[in-house]
Amino acid sequence: MKRILVLGAGLSATSLIDYLLKHSEIEDWQLRIGNRHTEKTREKIAGHPRGEAIKFDVQNQAQIDEEVKGCDIAVSFLPARFHALIAEACVKHGKHMVTASYVSKEMQALDKSAKDKGIVMLNELGVDPGIDHMSAMRVIDDIRDQGGKMLAFSSSTGGLIAPEYDNNPWHYKFTWNPRNVVLAGQATSCYLENNKYKYIPYHQLFTRTAKTEVLDFGKFEIYPNRDSLSYRKTYGLEDIPSIFRGTFRRPGYCKAWNVFVQLGLTDDTVIYEGDENTSYREFINSFLPYDPERSVEDKICSMLHLDPDGEIMEKFEWLGIFEDTPINMKNASPAEILQSILEEKLALGENDKDMIVMQHKFVYEQDGVKKGRKSSFAYIGKDQTQTAMAITVGIPAAIAVRLLAIGEIKLTGVHTPVIPELYNPILDELEKYDIQFIEEDMEV
Amino acid sequence: MKRILVLGAGLSATSLIDYLLKHSEIEDWQLRIGNRHTEKTREKIAGHPRGEAIKFDVQNQAQIDEEVKGCDIAVSFLPARFHALIAEACVKHGKHMVTASYVSKEMQALDKSAKDKGIVMLNELGVDPGIDHMSAMRVIDDIRDQGGKMLAFSSSTGGLIAPEYDNNPWHYKFTWNPRNVVLAGQATSCYLENNKYKYIPYHQLFTRTAKTEVLDFGKFEIYPNRDSLSYRKTYGLEDIPSIFRGTFRRPGYCKAWNVFVQLGLTDDTVIYEGDENTSYREFINSFLPYDPERSVEDKICSMLHLDPDGEIMEKFEWLGIFEDTPINMKNASPAEILQSILEEKLALGENDKDMIVMQHKFVYEQDGVKKGRKSSFAYIGKDQTQTAMAITVGIPAAIAVRLLAIGEIKLTGVHTPVIPELYNPILDELEKYDIQFIEEDMEV
Repeated sequence: MKRILVLGAGLSATSLIDYLLKHSEIEDWQLRIGNRHTEKTREKIAGHPRGEAIKFDVQNQAQIDEEVKGCDIAVSFLPARFHALIAEACVKHGKHMVTASYVSKEMQALDKSAKDKGIVMLNELGVDPGIDHMSAMRVIDDIRDQGGKMLAFSSSTGGLIAPEYDNNPWHYKFTWNPRNVVLAGQATSCYLENNKYKYIPYHQLFTRTAKTEVLDFGKFEIYPNRDSLSYRKTYGLEDIPSIFRGTFRRPGYCKAWNVFVQLGLTDDTVIYEGDENTSYREFINSFLPYDPERSVEDKICSMLHLDPDGEIMEKFEWLGIFEDTPINMKNASPAEILQSILEEKLALGENDKDMIVMQHKFVYEQDGVKKGRKSSFAYIGKDQTQTAMAITVGIPAAIAVRLLAIGEIKLTGVHTPVIPELYNPILDELEKYDIQFIEEDMEV
Repeated sequence: MKRILVLGAGLSATSLIDYLLKHSEIEDWQLRIGNRHTEKTREKIAGHPRGEAIKFDVQNQAQIDEEVKGCDIAVSFLPARFHALIAEACVKHGKHMVTASYVSKEMQALDKSAKDKGIVMLNELGVDPGIDHMSAMRVIDDIRDQGGKMLAFSSSTGGLIAPEYDNNPWHYKFTWNPRNVVLAGQATSCYLENNKYKYIPYHQLFTRTAKTEVLDFGKFEIYPNRDSLSYRKTYGLEDIPSIFRGTFRRPGYCKAWNVFVQLGLTDDTVIYEGDENTSYREFINSFLPYDPERSVEDKICSMLHLDPDGEIMEKFEWLGIFEDTPINMKNASPAEILQSILEEKLALGENDKDMIVMQHKFVYEQDGVKKGRKSSFAYIGKDQTQTAMAITVGIPAAIAVRLLAIGEIKLTGVHTPVIPELYNPILDELEKYDIQFIEEDMEV
């Protein structure tokens, strides 16, 4: 019998726990699921005899030690900053580990110790990072195996509202952590285009968009992600002339979001001086020049050259940002206040379903001919618990746990799924869950 | 005999040391001047029998202790981050202390201990902070003493090139730390206008300028400083409806500088991927959209709506940023590369003189009548050592040291010169150095 320890039982762990419980009888696993509160964990276990909910406190080093010592594989779905704590215990006690998060410096530093202990620490096994790596690397390796030379790689992902439930002028709802959406892109973005480095400061980000279509899911716009350049090393594309990573939104979103950025409403570095009674309108006015003769709407339009009757102003009016509604917040940053205003209108409705969209584009040279391929994927959530986000984050990690438990992964040290040994079996099994990329040739 | 310890003997300490040496015979002082290297200190002392240059290492706690213990007053003109180290030693050994820097949290935390020991720690005794506090508070207190109620306060300062040496299209030269000039304003600015809070994100800062004239020094433009709101507490203006602090530049500067900000050239958060051979032109191109059909100039003009033959483009051409000159830097941030490009052209020439300009505007109500005053000051440096910056930073601190040494300051604890007991004698003596504000009535 294998003992699997799952730490963290939040929304993103739902599908992971489901998968592991479903396989637990036939594979002879026992699951211990640790979370701050056991109530929600018990709901997720739903009386399954192979699952046990335990109260887990990540501040309790003795408990970490005890739990890790007693398991064969530890899965951390805790907030990413806690992975290193668990990883150290795994190295100490010689236990395998799985996470869906980016490899941190602390995690990478354990590579040698993990190898010495003969254990593996598998990371970046969610959707982004995770499915993006696996689906891209399968194509890149295939192109190289056939003697192709990569000329350009671009990859974009988005978490959006499913088309059937897309019923607001932003064509957007919060399908994951709203704070991350409000703060998205607050770092310089850089990418490479025909051997030219391109840097985009945050305040230009939402003006430098591209357009694309994905399968029959319609049109999307793409804004650049932070650091596309680092993917050259991750994917072994050190000499590639063009590399780009982006985020999908529906057309029109970026131009409107850019107004928030231009005004300074996404600023998380200062505390706004207003109080609970400050109105939305007054809050917005704080970011506009003083002029008692002109309306807030008038000032925004003239400052940012907007059409007063255009689509962008329509989006703001729909949000109600010009209303006298009180912000009901104190000692909050502009970003926190904006988030709270947006959550009123952009929250996922009770019956809404979310969607994950991903698309890679590959340009390469083979036998002197320039060729193109694209690989696309869209996945719609099942309900508000089994969201597309929860499924696409949890299932790849769960599959990796199964492969580890049945001894099909022979690696040691710190890894991400950019190698065939990991991406092939995981991608193959993901197809059973309709997580499948459609490959097409692309004109270049 | 009083023993005065001066730590730090950089450019800004020049006038301080001069002043203290000049008064040392008659007041019976002995000066010990500690710096990393003694050579420059010896030049400053120039054989004066009352001055002694010592090699001082701020990392050497034993030396700090020994030197502070042996003095009566310690003056720190070290980089601001080291003041707390000296301050702790002053408290330990019961010695007075003087700095020209903002009161840090660490410094403020010593207030009670300093009081218990019966010592005073005088801070913010330079030009900004320093002369700004003193000159503004004298007028504010005068208005209040006459029964006036403050309605609006604004204050701006600038370190610029003196008019006679203003011979470039930017009307600007680096008269102090160029790095600080390149990074200036990289935080949200906030101020209060008629009881409306106004927030300006960095990327809007140089578009939100005001204009003014100062004495017969001509026209200036003003961009907002970071946090004007904190001055309400500093100046006892808690209920004032309007408060603003700004920085002076010559007209036209801000619009052109804004182009650097918009492009992302002042970004100090990433390392630029180019190498020594990357040209200025290529560097600028990295911040513009990819388009091999269009020139760098063309792309800037269309992205930022600039007139190709206008003043802004003229300023850039004068700087040479479109040239093929190599940047000669590696592993540097865009801000560092920009600084290096600017230093080629905007450095202070051998015979140039700098200038400090300051202006306060006060609006108040007295006997039911709304009134206005302004108080203005401009000071031109004497040469490249006795710069306006060095004089206006060093002399107020030096005067404070003299007042302390002759027993005319009876305060204990941590202080800044916002109280009559400090600003009156210091401002009075500053007039001997032609550091004098011109007060005028102002129409409101």
